[in-house]
Amino acid sequence: MKLMRIGAPGAETPAVRTDDGETYALSGLTRDIDGEFFATGGTDRARAALAEGSLPRIDATGLRIGAPVARPGKVVCVGLNYRDHAEETGAAIPPRPVVFMKDASTVVGPYDPVPIPRGSTKTDWEVELAVVIGSEARYLGDPSEAAACIAGYAISNDVSEREFQLEYSAQWDLGKSCEGFNPLGPWLVTPDEVGDPQSLGLRLAVNGDPRQNGDTKNMIFDVAYLVWYLSQYMVLRPGDVINTGTPAGVALGLPGTPYLREGDVVELSIDGLGTQRQTFVNA
Amino acid sequence: MKLMRIGAPGAETPAVRTDDGETYALSGLTRDIDGEFFATGGTDRARAALAEGSLPRIDATGLRIGAPVARPGKVVCVGLNYRDHAEETGAAIPPRPVVFMKDASTVVGPYDPVPIPRGSTKTDWEVELAVVIGSEARYLGDPSEAAACIAGYAISNDVSEREFQLEYSAQWDLGKSCEGFNPLGPWLVTPDEVGDPQSLGLRLAVNGDPRQNGDTKNMIFDVAYLVWYLSQYMVLRPGDVINTGTPAGVALGLPGTPYLREGDVVELSIDGLGTQRQTFVNA
Repeated sequence: MKLMRIGAPGAETPAVRTDDGETYALSGLTRDIDGEFFATGGTDRARAALAEGSLPRIDATGLRIGAPVARPGKVVCVGLNYRDHAEETGAAIPPRPVVFMKDASTVVGPYDPVPIPRGSTKTDWEVELAVVIGSEARYLGDPSEAAACIAGYAISNDVSEREFQLEYSAQWDLGKSCEGFNPLGPWLVTPDEVGDPQSLGLRLAVNGDPRQNGDTKNMIFDVAYLVWYLSQYMVLRPGDVINTGTPAGVALGLPGTPYLREGDVVELSIDGLGTQRQTFVNA
Repeated sequence: MKLMRIGAPGAETPAVRTDDGETYALSGLTRDIDGEFFATGGTDRARAALAEGSLPRIDATGLRIGAPVARPGKVVCVGLNYRDHAEETGAAIPPRPVVFMKDASTVVGPYDPVPIPRGSTKTDWEVELAVVIGSEARYLGDPSEAAACIAGYAISNDVSEREFQLEYSAQWDLGKSCEGFNPLGPWLVTPDEVGDPQSLGLRLAVNGDPRQNGDTKNMIFDVAYLVWYLSQYMVLRPGDVINTGTPAGVALGLPGTPYLREGDVVELSIDGLGTQRQTFVNA
């Protein structure tokens, strides 16, 4: 099942997209798709309502698509989690997950324009598999317990300003937290429909030129391990988002470091999770 | 004015504490003290209602005190912002603020017990002046514009697990985001009552032994500068919390590194902002 949110920023309607391209409103079931929705069995309720044909069909033509999760409590990111990306940035293969955070209010819709921060000359892209938490994970006993805590998967663009991230201090969060720096969606795909999360191709192109072309099979720490690992150190709550790292091909690692400029168009896709497209604009 | 929240976790009543020690409920004015409260002039409404005597007095005896801000959107932290603390940790004086984040769901009440994470041997304390944002700060032109964006100040204990923070990767957030790691309060004191935020003594004791004794006049980057600086890189929104750094005297920098153990009691105070007291317990 594909969960989504449609409409103006802050006023999105919760909805389901079916495989035949139709859209059905969930407004009768829930006020929004958020942590509370997942914590109270919202996904099962939506699935049942869809099956029994009780959801009203809506015409989504021309409407904005928002992030598929409203107000995530936190966005946890894992750095250097693909061997080829660690190599392109000159970093060693990390012995443990490298964990940092970005401001959760950076989460925006998958087609929203993304501001290049004032003074930025090193705004960069990162296609990533995002995991959305469905039920609380606290001191999981084993990575095998992770699956039960996952609401679904989505595409994430972990936009990064490399000067702010890497040159201003040793802590990365500043260059990860600029306004609009986390396009998410277009939808949240439930785990049953995704299948094996470690067998998904990820692609990103800038102005039509292919830049990233990876596969989640090349993660150093897989999704189940990451959820288990994080749960040893923090409480993962329904609606939280985990960005699981990016494969090679970011501007930082390419010849000539072709960072983003006003008017550049970035397109991202992950197998089974749809497509994103953002135009970068000056803030 | 002192704003506070009283009652069981997740069910706190918004209130005002007056200088004569009385407590008045704000429930008739607002559902909670949160970002929306600040964004919609809640502080002014509370002040007016208090002045006209229209708030019901409540007996707060024996009731839990919660964090004075509900559901902060983010907790931004500034590291190494006191010269003596940078020196005790062996770090250089930073040329720019060192910015990291902790999971905002770590914010708890000022007297709540704090769990020592499983497997932790290096749980540490940090008394800090917390700034709570009252109105959006985005690309402020000058540090002089910061004051208008500040809702008030509170005591923060930026609890830190040094092994998770410093030894597992170069990114600090993992050791800052454990459950219950950000006691905040007891109240949010409005700027008019605090006066100069750069002239406040901060103290912390463990089991009655004085450990930290600093003054906000020794910050490397002052509050106005920090709010201005952060606003160049991220959007600060009403209800967001900034932990402005800790002075010397943390366990990491003391002879014998006396990290916290089950049963240890930590007491914190800042001039004009009250007192906190936490018992540390095994998770």
